[in-house]
Amino acid sequence: MQEKITIVGGGLSGSLLAIYMAKRGFEVSLFERRPDMRKNKIYAGKSINLALSTRGLNALSKIGLDTEILNDAIPMAGRMMHSVKGDLTYQPYGKEGQAINSVSRGRLNTKLVELADEYPNITIYFNAKCVDVDLTKNLCVFEMEDGSKKEVWSDRIIGTDGAFAATRGKMQMGDRFNYSQNYLHVGYKELVIPAGPNAEFLMEKGALHIWPRGSYMMIALPNPAGDFTCTLFMPFEGEYGFANLDTKEKVVEFFNTNFPDAVALMPTLTEDFFTNPTSSLVTVKCYPWVKEDKLALMGDAAHAIVPFYGQGMNCSFEDVVVFDECVEKYFPNWTKVFDEYQKLRKPNADAIADLAVQNYYEMADKVGDKEFLHKKHIEHDLSDLYPEKYKSQYELTTFSLSSYSYALNQGKKNEALIDRIIADKAEDKIKDAAYMDTLWHLLA
Amino acid sequence: MQEKITIVGGGLSGSLLAIYMAKRGFEVSLFERRPDMRKNKIYAGKSINLALSTRGLNALSKIGLDTEILNDAIPMAGRMMHSVKGDLTYQPYGKEGQAINSVSRGRLNTKLVELADEYPNITIYFNAKCVDVDLTKNLCVFEMEDGSKKEVWSDRIIGTDGAFAATRGKMQMGDRFNYSQNYLHVGYKELVIPAGPNAEFLMEKGALHIWPRGSYMMIALPNPAGDFTCTLFMPFEGEYGFANLDTKEKVVEFFNTNFPDAVALMPTLTEDFFTNPTSSLVTVKCYPWVKEDKLALMGDAAHAIVPFYGQGMNCSFEDVVVFDECVEKYFPNWTKVFDEYQKLRKPNADAIADLAVQNYYEMADKVGDKEFLHKKHIEHDLSDLYPEKYKSQYELTTFSLSSYSYALNQGKKNEALIDRIIADKAEDKIKDAAYMDTLWHLLA
Repeated sequence: MQEKITIVGGGLSGSLLAIYMAKRGFEVSLFERRPDMRKNKIYAGKSINLALSTRGLNALSKIGLDTEILNDAIPMAGRMMHSVKGDLTYQPYGKEGQAINSVSRGRLNTKLVELADEYPNITIYFNAKCVDVDLTKNLCVFEMEDGSKKEVWSDRIIGTDGAFAATRGKMQMGDRFNYSQNYLHVGYKELVIPAGPNAEFLMEKGALHIWPRGSYMMIALPNPAGDFTCTLFMPFEGEYGFANLDTKEKVVEFFNTNFPDAVALMPTLTEDFFTNPTSSLVTVKCYPWVKEDKLALMGDAAHAIVPFYGQGMNCSFEDVVVFDECVEKYFPNWTKVFDEYQKLRKPNADAIADLAVQNYYEMADKVGDKEFLHKKHIEHDLSDLYPEKYKSQYELTTFSLSSYSYALNQGKKNEALIDRIIADKAEDKIKDAAYMDTLWHLLA
Repeated sequence: MQEKITIVGGGLSGSLLAIYMAKRGFEVSLFERRPDMRKNKIYAGKSINLALSTRGLNALSKIGLDTEILNDAIPMAGRMMHSVKGDLTYQPYGKEGQAINSVSRGRLNTKLVELADEYPNITIYFNAKCVDVDLTKNLCVFEMEDGSKKEVWSDRIIGTDGAFAATRGKMQMGDRFNYSQNYLHVGYKELVIPAGPNAEFLMEKGALHIWPRGSYMMIALPNPAGDFTCTLFMPFEGEYGFANLDTKEKVVEFFNTNFPDAVALMPTLTEDFFTNPTSSLVTVKCYPWVKEDKLALMGDAAHAIVPFYGQGMNCSFEDVVVFDECVEKYFPNWTKVFDEYQKLRKPNADAIADLAVQNYYEMADKVGDKEFLHKKHIEHDLSDLYPEKYKSQYELTTFSLSSYSYALNQGKKNEALIDRIIADKAEDKIKDAAYMDTLWHLLA
């Protein structure tokens, strides 16, 4: 008989993992707390759209879903910065042809669940809330839609139940479990720029829009129907804080002053502002991620990160790929599978968590800064002139399968190199191979 | 009518706080999970003895307990390092007359509870376990010895219920509560060197003994009855790890090889080793420490630290002093009392947490190192020659009321100064005021 795997959480990571494990022939049960997203058009919780890039596409390609998902996606080849006066500045994310892809979380999750449902060895349960995990008996207990309790025995349990995972709670109660949750001082609220008369985009379609304002910012991502999902990121407290925007008049004045070009496109601004929740942003780190050969955590359950590098889903999908590779290498030694998986992924999850927090400050503050744009200009020239030698942190993170740790370290080295060029006042010598030869050691 | 204060946890911080609050005239209820330590000689949990120093003594002096406690304490003026061959090296902690004091946790707690019991406005409940806190109704719920539930209403609730505080659990469930628990890779086990024939000390009485062995160490603190409490600190796993010491033969061989001078004084070594638990060491950080004007966390409940700087109790006692000063300044504005308290204490709790982890590596590894001892020698000379200008990190932390943050920062500056003297090969110029005048800016 095939080994049984219980996956707790049918979001993006859980449904992708179910497919990977089914392809290996395991008997998979997938439990999701929420109702079936195929029957419920309104997708509750979490952000509406996501930026799918190389790592995520790599994971989808292995189950043949990449092309179909890209068909519904909108490529964003760069950032479009909006100044207070409405001036636009465009900065490409990578080279010609490189782009991140705006996809709908709900649609992607639905596609994954539909594909999972085609496998005879996957059983999906919705409205099933994990209320206990008993590792001595390999049991998961779920509260089902009718209020009954369902006890499920399996060989392995994998927790993909998100930042506030019930499965992780079980590990937290044990001794020597390292854990941290750190909230950003900034929260977020989703707003909307609707499509124009003929479902037309009222701003540039192929870019991620940013209104950087130092201590706060707004961003907008395009959706296939012609609308943009806007997100205001802002401190909870303080002069420019959500707590201060407590009347319609204040909201209108604040937007008119700070985002005048956007506010003209936001007819439902004040309604949305007071209807939509203000949500918090948390980084969760923990270790170990596994308990013997019984339980493993994956995705946000192991490493929730803030959204500013657009890597949350991409990182979680890469978890699945790496885990699957460990199964390929070490099965049926599950202790080894679990241990190798956590050792390979933990440093990378830590790296992207730190990169994501850093990127908030870059997006909100630095992208409007002259010195920063000058550095980005030098970086762009280096990438163009020496594509094999110079890879930007953004490129390594977003458009490569190099590890996040490598991207983090290489980014620091890149910064030292560019600082040196600026200190040498050698911007015009970048094309000079002899000059550059004296500097490449900084990247080693 | 006087305001009611409920204190959850009757350990060292809770019982001290009860007295401070009673002196201000509040009606105090103190709830302790364990039985009355005055009736139970065996004191369960936590380490047996503690190092009381300036901050702790300052807190005790304000309630007139310092002299009485010092009468039962054993001053330790320095560290006594034991090499594998049994060679001894002595290093004073501070100046002539400065010492840390070995005190019994049980005796100190008993004295505090006895003093608390003398106040008519303090009521103490033992065997009362906090099972819920309802902040909307200002209620604490306790499970009493007979299994009944007791609901207690009060104006303020203060959680002094330790590293795994039930009161903190309530705050953790809310949004935007930053929290981390980090376990050291090292655990500990308590052992004993009994007194000699006439209750005599079999090693130097006035020192904290250390057997530094790099990746592990043993320490010993003197007790008034002539015995020493030994603690072995060692990784859980690995070649030199607790997991490896799983037979009497291995334990005996390990001690004979690594602590031969101590093992000769430890007749019950193997029994103690397999009877006493191996415990873990955790650093807990969190924020905020308060919820409006209703609940405040104090002591280990707010900031559990590892024991290597001997400051856990001293830091918690200083919390009480600072909180009391906030009450004096801002009462009856409790929102302000709570907020000022957390703002004043949080950076210092973080600083001593980091200093305590650093000190593990210093004690286990560096104290046996020639370069380290050379630096300590220079430091000692600087302290002697320039007592007003040069204060060591240890002195600032242990023998002063300067903030822990200041001690942490000043320690880094001291290190830079000493590194510079060594780089200049100027050890013999320390007495040269002109040379030193060129360096003092490093401490600014």
